[in-house]
Amino acid sequence: MHPDGPRILVVGATGAVGREVLAILAERGHPRGWVVAAASERSAGGEVPYGREAVAVVAATPAALGGVDLAVLAADTDVARELAPRLVEAGARVVDNSSAFRLDPAVPLVVPEVNGDLLAAGGARLVANPNCTTILLLVALEPLRRAFGIDRVVVSTYQAVSGAGLAAMDELAEQTRAVLDGRAPEPRVFPEPCAFNAFPHESPVDPETGLNEEERKLIREARRVWDDPDARIVPTCVRVPVLRAHAESVVVTLRAPAREDELRDALAAAPGVRLVDDRAGGRFPTSLRAAGGDDVLVGRLRPAPDEPLDGEGRARSFCLWLAGDQLRKGAAGNALQLGDLLLARG
Amino acid sequence: MHPDGPRILVVGATGAVGREVLAILAERGHPRGWVVAAASERSAGGEVPYGREAVAVVAATPAALGGVDLAVLAADTDVARELAPRLVEAGARVVDNSSAFRLDPAVPLVVPEVNGDLLAAGGARLVANPNCTTILLLVALEPLRRAFGIDRVVVSTYQAVSGAGLAAMDELAEQTRAVLDGRAPEPRVFPEPCAFNAFPHESPVDPETGLNEEERKLIREARRVWDDPDARIVPTCVRVPVLRAHAESVVVTLRAPAREDELRDALAAAPGVRLVDDRAGGRFPTSLRAAGGDDVLVGRLRPAPDEPLDGEGRARSFCLWLAGDQLRKGAAGNALQLGDLLLARG
Repeated sequence: MHPDGPRILVVGATGAVGREVLAILAERGHPRGWVVAAASERSAGGEVPYGREAVAVVAATPAALGGVDLAVLAADTDVARELAPRLVEAGARVVDNSSAFRLDPAVPLVVPEVNGDLLAAGGARLVANPNCTTILLLVALEPLRRAFGIDRVVVSTYQAVSGAGLAAMDELAEQTRAVLDGRAPEPRVFPEPCAFNAFPHESPVDPETGLNEEERKLIREARRVWDDPDARIVPTCVRVPVLRAHAESVVVTLRAPAREDELRDALAAAPGVRLVDDRAGGRFPTSLRAAGGDDVLVGRLRPAPDEPLDGEGRARSFCLWLAGDQLRKGAAGNALQLGDLLLARG
Repeated sequence: MHPDGPRILVVGATGAVGREVLAILAERGHPRGWVVAAASERSAGGEVPYGREAVAVVAATPAALGGVDLAVLAADTDVARELAPRLVEAGARVVDNSSAFRLDPAVPLVVPEVNGDLLAAGGARLVANPNCTTILLLVALEPLRRAFGIDRVVVSTYQAVSGAGLAAMDELAEQTRAVLDGRAPEPRVFPEPCAFNAFPHESPVDPETGLNEEERKLIREARRVWDDPDARIVPTCVRVPVLRAHAESVVVTLRAPAREDELRDALAAAPGVRLVDDRAGGRFPTSLRAAGGDDVLVGRLRPAPDEPLDGEGRARSFCLWLAGDQLRKGAAGNALQLGDLLLARG
């Protein structure tokens, strides 16, 4: 590592996640001189914001990739598959935010709050960042999984458009303005109009199982992070006209029955989780309340109303509602947490 | 009944549901002269649209309520409690869209496609219209309930703002414009900003159970319509920035195992339901696709991925996604279906 701090490369620096990585690095006070912002040759040559300053965007060619301590790849799978091995070979630690390596048995798939200990032994050079929806769900469930075990998770998502990138965020704004002005929305990024519309996640639907690719990712990645190939996850992934935070409605069935206050205590003590659950004041997680923050907000915790409590006031099924910033904790924030672990334990 | 057709009174004619009742009557070609539009004294004196024409709005005083064959009450519970008995006494059939009589054992609570036979014997003078969320869910589930029985329903809703009235629809438009112009949204109808935000339903949360009032309505009303006081419903009710159609993500556990194609056949044949489930083409129910229509759109039907199919390809738990126009089938349309039944069987 360089004496003045790690030299950090961000590939995909002009995209929604790449910009967020740079924003977090600038917030942390990471020196601008120790950041390399790279993008496709088409996007290279300009600048991207770095806090109140800016950094030049270079082309993500091999020449630009030398002398890097940590690389955060926020690009598509093809770019990740091409660049990650070269970066590792050149001595860098690499965090990939694409799905390229998420199911590769040689590459750990890590949510720091859940299975960060996979990186404790050191030696890992490439680590994969799960899908945003998976990260938010697993961070919220981890204290319950540790304390009581989890038998089944039914989850319906309320996903922001930011998961589909900056163009999708622009599309939501443009379409919304069009509708308010009495014009027809023009779908480009999404197959359906996104303004004032809730619609199933746009990823392809498997003709056999009926699951869309987002749902399949959620199942596969949760099983891998939990190291439990039989984990029972029943997901429905949906887009809503929200800019950058995902929300999820969850019914979790525990292995061991528990009292609601025991779940509350576990959630309140968990890293990365913030309980927002004021029944009297009507204050709960919302997409907007989560936007811009690093915590997964959890609230509306209650026993499923169809199961009577046992003699000690315990239940096995609980409902909860969570919200988290898709770009921060769901992508850029988790990736940088992984980068910290790689550099510290490296 | 009058020789030229029933004389229909709409109370709450200036509200979102009242306007929709008038729109449907006009579509049907019901003569304008046989409609009385009434509202609070504050709203009386103006006009409301009646197709391409308009009708005068009179004050909902007892004097205005005579000589009515059918009254549709789209007002609040206090108005309903005051007017319904008088209208019945004056000889009218009354459909109430408020929650005033929904749990009154003397008043049938009816979704025509589900328990319309309650009105078959005739003689009913007052009937209650369930909550919009309940109606849409029960219409979609009815073919499955009849064919296979239902053991448990887990449902997360994506509710349009129209359920909170015209002021809420205006608020969504105003707040959205404000956010796009860089101004802060000003919540008035809802406790949270509704523009670009998903937030738990705004009804009060019961301090004991943690359920909000919308969720309690859904449980109580479904049990009453199904005439099954132990029916297992696990709801989470959420608002999304959508104008007028609700969507719902449902996991239904059947009493008897069934094949997916058997469910499809049952849904395809069901009144009030339209299957929209094109996996290859990516075409499914959405809020916008349901808006303005009378059907409940159902799609994304698939077995829950955590339960292996039995030897005959059958499963007990299925996921599905539905969308329906909250103002039409969820309120005004169902109310007029009930009115038809009352007049035909009366």
